[in-house]
Amino acid sequence: MAATAGPEIERLIALLGKLPGLGPRSARRAALALLKRRDTLLDPLTAALVEAQAKVKTCSVCGSLDTTDPCAICADASRDRALICVVEDVGSIWAMERAAAFRGRYHVLGGLLSALDGIGPEKLRVGELVARAADGVAREVILALPATVDGQTTAHYLADRLAPTGLQVTMLARGVPVGGDLDWLDDGTIAQALRARRPA
Amino acid sequence: MAATAGPEIERLIALLGKLPGLGPRSARRAALALLKRRDTLLDPLTAALVEAQAKVKTCSVCGSLDTTDPCAICADASRDRALICVVEDVGSIWAMERAAAFRGRYHVLGGLLSALDGIGPEKLRVGELVARAADGVAREVILALPATVDGQTTAHYLADRLAPTGLQVTMLARGVPVGGDLDWLDDGTIAQALRARRPA
Repeated sequence: MAATAGPEIERLIALLGKLPGLGPRSARRAALALLKRRDTLLDPLTAALVEAQAKVKTCSVCGSLDTTDPCAICADASRDRALICVVEDVGSIWAMERAAAFRGRYHVLGGLLSALDGIGPEKLRVGELVARAADGVAREVILALPATVDGQTTAHYLADRLAPTGLQVTMLARGVPVGGDLDWLDDGTIAQALRARRPA
Repeated sequence: MAATAGPEIERLIALLGKLPGLGPRSARRAALALLKRRDTLLDPLTAALVEAQAKVKTCSVCGSLDTTDPCAICADASRDRALICVVEDVGSIWAMERAAAFRGRYHVLGGLLSALDGIGPEKLRVGELVARAADGVAREVILALPATVDGQTTAHYLADRLAPTGLQVTMLARGVPVGGDLDWLDDGTIAQALRARRPA
């Protein structure tokens, strides 16, 4: 696209366009909103990014992102150290925490095994997981990985790697999501929900 | 939504969510992408925003945004001062410049008249437009406003206000957009394109 808005603004647009969810056109709209709403948007967002640059770090225990190391969850003595929930990414931790249904701790893999993308176990935080699982406190490892081919390959691989520890290894249940209308569900989910049916 | 990612990160997410095109969920994904891709995304975007804060200003002639005042377009002696293209917003200038079909100068209104939103002429850069139109150099004012009710109301109002200057006041043509398939066009556009038909 031709540089029509001056190099500084074009550069801002190009960088905003790298954010997931923003394409070239919406990046332009976002840049415009920032430049027009200086006090309420540009200044506070810049300050928040500067603060994130300076303060956010990776938790050395679970691999999550927080302003402290260990992160607030790992440092929270009220959370059950016997339960380790393995997630692909920090975004999954945020989703789990919003659900507020889990009171253990997390372990961020940092991705999924993928033969296609050349991602082997050595590129993920698998060794750290096995080490944590063998700390004598852990009792159960919950594999909260996506219900995709790579997610399931990774889950099976981790279950194998964790077998020698003797810990219980579990996976999230499959079925119809809350509020899920059968009309909108894919065939695979319906088939899984049917196979895993239970007394009403 | 519960604060699940620490106050600094939640604040960043909330601010990203104010950008047009990003909802609460995509703001989370964007924040995560920023925090994970520090060197390629967080650092350069922060720098670009800091630069925009420091350098971008409003052009005192046309109301556009640029790092210089007057803006690069108003300062460009090769652009025809006799043609003033009136646009709602800076985003429209960027779109016109991408089309590279206009060699005159612009005038940013800063919005559209809207009885519903209580936006009268005094909240737009109408006085500045009338003053520019009377500078003795201007010959034609092109109203490049949206083909919406507010856009057309504003265009009619401006045509009335500009009538005493004796300048030619024109509007963008209506019709089938380039690449536009009739199947996908709304009835109003088809009706306008038919009324404004011309010899093939």
